[in-house]
Amino acid sequence: MHNFQAVLETIYHDAINADDKGKVATYIPELAHIDKGNLGIHLRTSDGKEYGVGDYNKPFSIQSISKVLALSKAMSLIGEDIWERIDVEPSGNPFNFLSLLEIENGIPRNPLINSGAIVIADVLISNLKNPKEDFLNYVRELTGDNTINFNKAVAHSEKVTGFKNYAAANLLKSFKNLNNPVEDVLDFYFHQCSIEMTCSQLSKAFYLFANKGKCLKNKLHITEQQVKRINALMLTCGFYDEAGEFAFEVGLPGKSGVGGGIVALLPEKFVISTWSPGLNIKGNSKLGMLALEQFTTKTKLSIF
Amino acid sequence: MHNFQAVLETIYHDAINADDKGKVATYIPELAHIDKGNLGIHLRTSDGKEYGVGDYNKPFSIQSISKVLALSKAMSLIGEDIWERIDVEPSGNPFNFLSLLEIENGIPRNPLINSGAIVIADVLISNLKNPKEDFLNYVRELTGDNTINFNKAVAHSEKVTGFKNYAAANLLKSFKNLNNPVEDVLDFYFHQCSIEMTCSQLSKAFYLFANKGKCLKNKLHITEQQVKRINALMLTCGFYDEAGEFAFEVGLPGKSGVGGGIVALLPEKFVISTWSPGLNIKGNSKLGMLALEQFTTKTKLSIF
Amino acid sequence: MHNFQAVLETIYHDAINADDKGKVATYIPELAHIDKGNLGIHLRTSDGKEYGVGDYNKPFSIQSISKVLALSKAMSLIGEDIWERIDVEPSGNPFNFLSLLEIENGIPRNPLINSGAIVIADVLISNLKNPKEDFLNYVRELTGDNTINFNKAVAHSEKVTGFKNYAAANLLKSFKNLNNPVEDVLDFYFHQCSIEMTCSQLSKAFYLFANKGKCLKNKLHITEQQVKRINALMLTCGFYDEAGEFAFEVGLPGKSGVGGGIVALLPEKFVISTWSPGLNIKGNSKLGMLALEQFTTKTKLSIF
Amino acid sequence: MHNFQAVLETIYHDAINADDKGKVATYIPELAHIDKGNLGIHLRTSDGKEYGVGDYNKPFSIQSISKVLALSKAMSLIGEDIWERIDVEPSGNPFNFLSLLEIENGIPRNPLINSGAIVIADVLISNLKNPKEDFLNYVRELTGDNTINFNKAVAHSEKVTGFKNYAAANLLKSFKNLNNPVEDVLDFYFHQCSIEMTCSQLSKAFYLFANKGKCLKNKLHITEQQVKRINALMLTCGFYDEAGEFAFEVGLPGKSGVGGGIVALLPEKFVISTWSPGLNIKGNSKLGMLALEQFTTKTKLSIF
Repeated sequence: MHNFQAVLETIYHDAINADDKGKVATYIPELAHIDKGNLGIHLRTSDGKEYGVGDYNKPFSIQSISKVLALSKAMSLIGEDIWERIDVEPSGNPFNFLSLLEIENGIPRNPLINSGAIVIADVLISNLKNPKEDFLNYVRELTGDNTINFNKAVAHSEKVTGFKNYAAANLLKSFKNLNNPVEDVLDFYFHQCSIEMTCSQLSKAFYLFANKGKCLKNKLHITEQQVKRINALMLTCGFYDEAGEFAFEVGLPGKSGVGGGIVALLPEKFVISTWSPGLNIKGNSKLGMLALEQFTTKTKLSIF
Repeated sequence: MHNFQAVLETIYHDAINADDKGKVATYIPELAHIDKGNLGIHLRTSDGKEYGVGDYNKPFSIQSISKVLALSKAMSLIGEDIWERIDVEPSGNPFNFLSLLEIENGIPRNPLINSGAIVIADVLISNLKNPKEDFLNYVRELTGDNTINFNKAVAHSEKVTGFKNYAAANLLKSFKNLNNPVEDVLDFYFHQCSIEMTCSQLSKAFYLFANKGKCLKNKLHITEQQVKRINALMLTCGFYDEAGEFAFEVGLPGKSGVGGGIVALLPEKFVISTWSPGLNIKGNSKLGMLALEQFTTKTKLSIF
Repeated sequence: MHNFQAVLETIYHDAINADDKGKVATYIPELAHIDKGNLGIHLRTSDGKEYGVGDYNKPFSIQSISKVLALSKAMSLIGEDIWERIDVEPSGNPFNFLSLLEIENGIPRNPLINSGAIVIADVLISNLKNPKEDFLNYVRELTGDNTINFNKAVAHSEKVTGFKNYAAANLLKSFKNLNNPVEDVLDFYFHQCSIEMTCSQLSKAFYLFANKGKCLKNKLHITEQQVKRINALMLTCGFYDEAGEFAFEVGLPGKSGVGGGIVALLPEKFVISTWSPGLNIKGNSKLGMLALEQFTTKTKLSIF
Repeated sequence: MHNFQAVLETIYHDAINADDKGKVATYIPELAHIDKGNLGIHLRTSDGKEYGVGDYNKPFSIQSISKVLALSKAMSLIGEDIWERIDVEPSGNPFNFLSLLEIENGIPRNPLINSGAIVIADVLISNLKNPKEDFLNYVRELTGDNTINFNKAVAHSEKVTGFKNYAAANLLKSFKNLNNPVEDVLDFYFHQCSIEMTCSQLSKAFYLFANKGKCLKNKLHITEQQVKRINALMLTCGFYDEAGEFAFEVGLPGKSGVGGGIVALLPEKFVISTWSPGLNIKGNSKLGMLALEQFTTKTKLSIF
C-alpha cells in the first residue's frame, strides 16, 4: 500500500526545483504569458480517494487533452463507423504533418493528431444538436462539475492564428473527409481545445477510461471494448512524436496538451493529472513528464 | 521559309481527328461542361504575321497560364526581391504538393506551381493600388485589347471548391510567407486565373517574352535578364510534372492551364497558342500537346 | 482462475476453421512452401505452468522475433549507449521504409524495424567474441534448450534475395551508423533471423521480459528498467504498421515475424506464443492475430 | 562575330581572381587533394574552331558528366525501350534521394541522377560484349583520342566508399529494375565515372549533341530525335537541384560532375567545357558556373 500523498509531495518537491522548466508555448498568443513556475499534480484512485499537491486546483487550457474526450463522445454517438474516416496507427512524423495526410488520401493517421481530431470535430457537429453546448455538457457530466467552461479569448486567439489547422482542415475537405464547412468545424475545434479545467477536474473527467466506460455517476458512456481502443490509442499516439518515450518512461496511457496539462491512467487503479506550462522540445510539459516518470518509478505502478 | 498556315492546317486536321481527346477538368464545376471538340491554334511571328486555325478566336479560361503574367508583373514591381520568398527549381512532386512546402519551410519551389503563384498574388496585392483592376489592365495593355475580362462565375466556382488552394495559402501563412489575409490573396488569385482570352489574344500577351521584355507597343515591361529567367522557368517548370516531357516533345518554353490552353514561344521568332479543353492524365491539354509537338517536329523550330 | 487449456482449445478450433488463412510470405523463397494449415499456440504462466494446442512443438523460422532477443543481448552488453544510434519512436511509414532513415540522418526510428535491427546486429558483432555462436548460445540459455539452431538454408536464401536489407545497411553505412562491413553485419543479421524455434521454446525464451529481466534459470540478464523499455517498444513498434491495431485488439507487448510466429506477454503473468505461416496484408500471422485477440478477449488478460 | 579567344580570356581572368573558389569534394578520397586553383575553359564551335584558356589541357575525373555519354550509348543500343525503366522528369529532391525511388516503385526520375545512371549502366552491361572496354572505346571514338582512360584508383576509391550508390543499386534490384548483379553494375558505373578527360577532349566528345547525333568523324550515333531528348534532359536535370538556376544563369543544356567539370552546348553552334575542382554548395563547380554565366551574358549566346 502506497502513501500517495507523500509520494506526490516528494515528486512535486523534486520537480519544482528543476532548473530547466521548459518553454511556454507561444504560438497561441493568449497562452504565452502563463507563469511556468506553476505545477499541479492530482491523483484519484478508483476507490475514490484523492491526493493533490501544488496548483492542482488552478484551471488551465486543456488543449489537445480534449481530443480524447471528443473521441469518446464521437464513439458513443456513431461507434466504429469512425474508423472509416480515421486510422489507428502512430504517425511518426513530427516534421511534416500534412505530408502523410496527403499521401494517405485525406485519412488521418489517428484521432489524437490534429487532422484526426478535426475529423472527430466534424463527426460531433453532424451528430450533436447544439455541438458546442452539448460537448461542454458532456465534459461537465463526466466531471460532475458545471463550472467548467470554454475560454472564449483562447478560442478566438487560435482562430486568428491557427493557420496550420486551417491548412489541415482544407486539405481534409479537398479529400471529402469533412462534411461540414471548414469554418464551422474549426470553430467547434478551437472551442473544444479552449476548455479550462483543473488537475482535479481532469482526474475525474478521465475516470471512465479507468472504469470500463462508466463515469463517476456510474453511467455507461462507452463500451469496455471502446475504452480499450481509446487507451491503446493514448499509449501509442498520445504524446506527439514522444509517444514511444512516454510509453517507456511512464508506461501509462495518457494525453498531453500544449497548455501544459497531462493526464494518464492505470485501468481499474487510478487517474493522475499534472499541469505545468513549460514545454519540452517535443511539446509536452517538462515538469509534468518528470513528475509522472517519478511517480511510476517510485510506485512501480505502470502497465509494463 | 515555312508556309505556317499550311502547317497549322495540317496539324489541326491530324489533332481534331484523334480518337482520344482527353478529359475535361471537373474540379472547377464551372469549367466541366465545355465541349472537348474545341481546338484552336494561333501563331504570331515576331515580325507581326498571324496564322490561325479552328477555334482560335473563342475565349477560354486561361487558369495557370496567368501565373506567368502575374510573375512578370511582380518582377516589374519588386524585381529580384521575389526570390527571397520563392525558389526557381522544378518541384518534381505531383503526388504530394504540400509536402515539399512543409519540408522547405514555406518556400515554394517555383512561381509556376500553385503555392508559388499564391505568393506572387500576395506580392501583387501589396504592390498594386487596385490589385484586380490593375492586373487586368496589365493584361489588357500587353494584349492591346480592352475586352479581356475576368469570368466572375469561374472565380466564384473556385472560391467555393478550391480547398487545396486554401490549404496551401494557410500553410504559407503559417510560415509567414503571406503578408496579406488568406481570403484577400485567394480572391485575387482566383480572379487572376479566371481571366478569359482567345488563342490570338494569348499570342499577343506573351509577345514580350519573345521580344526581350517589350510588348506590342514597344514598351519595356521587364528586363532582358528577367525575360531569360521567366523563359527558363517556363521550360523547367511550366507543365506540372510533365515539364521534362514537354521540353523534349516540344522543346519550347511554355505554360499550360487546366482550362485547356497552352502558350509557348521561341525567343525572337514566334509565340504559339493552342486551346482544347480535354486534358491528359498530367493535366495538360491533350490535343494542344499533340499540336505543339507536331508543330516543332514539322518546322524543326525549337530551342534544342 | 482460468481454465487455460480449455480456452486455448476453443480459440484453436475457431481459428483453424477460418476460411481465410492469409498468404505465406514468398519473398524469402525458402519459406514460401510451408503449409498454412499449421497453427500452434502455447502459453506459459509465470508460475511455470504450460498449455499447448496444435503445432506448438513444430519449429519455424522466428525471423523478426529475433530482433527483440538481439536487442536484449545488446542492451546487456552496452546499456543505454544504444540510444545514441537508434530512436525509440514508432515509424508509421510502411510504404517508404528508407525515406525516414534518409531524412533522419541514418538514425533508425526504433530497434524493431529492419534498419534498427541492422544497427543492433552491428553492436553485437562489435561486442561479441564469436558473434553468431555467442548469440545462438544466448538464445539457447534463455530457453534452456541446446537444440535450437540457425537454418543455414534460410539464412542463405535471404542473403541472395535481401536487396532491401542491403539497401538499408548501405544507407546506414553512408551515414556512418555501421562500424563493421555491410557483408559481416548482414551475414549475422540473416543468421539471427533464421533461427528456428517452436512455440513452446519461444514462450520460454521471452520469459525474462515477463520476469523483470530474469530468465528461467533465475539469472538476471537485463535490468527491470531495460525490460520496461523493451516491453514499451514491443507495444508501440512490434507489429510493423499494425502496432496500433495490435495494441487495441490484443493489448499486450509482443513481436511478430514473417515466418508466421508471434510472441506476446503480460508482465508477471504469462508469455503466449503462436505460429501459423499465413500472413495478413500487413505481414503479421493471420490466424495468430485472431488467436491472440480471442485469448485476451476471452480471458480479459491485457494491459488495458 | 565574337572574338571568342578574347572573351574566354576575360572571363578566365575574372573567375580566377574570385575570392571564393568553392570546396573540393571530399567524399571520393582520391579526388580530395586536387588544387582548386585549377581553371580551364575550352570552346569548340561547330565549324571546328577551338579556343582555350588556363588548364584546358589537364585531365580531370569527369564523374557524372559520363552519364550523358552512357545514356547516348544506351539509346543507340536499345532506343526508346529505356523509358520503360526510367522517367524523364526533374527530381526536385536533393535531400532524400532514395525516397522518390521508393515511392515510385524503383523507376528513377531521370537518367542523369545516380539511380537512373545505374539503370543505364545495367542496360550497357546487358548489351555490350565487353562493357568497360566497349564503353571506353565509344568515348575514345567520339573524341577521336585513344589516350583517354579510366582512373583505376578513383574507381576503386568509389567502390570502397560509395555506400549510397550501393544502397540505390540494391533498392533498384529489390524493385527488379536491375538485371545484372549489383556488384557488376556498380563496378561498371564506378569505372565509367572515373574516366579522365581534358576540357578540350570533352568539347569534342559532346560535339554529337550539338550536331544532330553525328560525331567529329561524321558518323551518326543517335538520331536527331534522340539528341533533342538528351539536350532536353540536360537542360531540365543536368545540374542536381540547381538545374533551374543553371537554365536561367547560363541558358544552355549541360552537365556537371563532382570532379569540377561542366560541359554545355548550343545546338549547331558550339560546345563549351570548363573545369575547376572547387564546388558550390549544390555540388557544381563554382568557377565553372561563373565562367559559363559570364560567357552567355557577354556573348548573348543561349537558348533563351
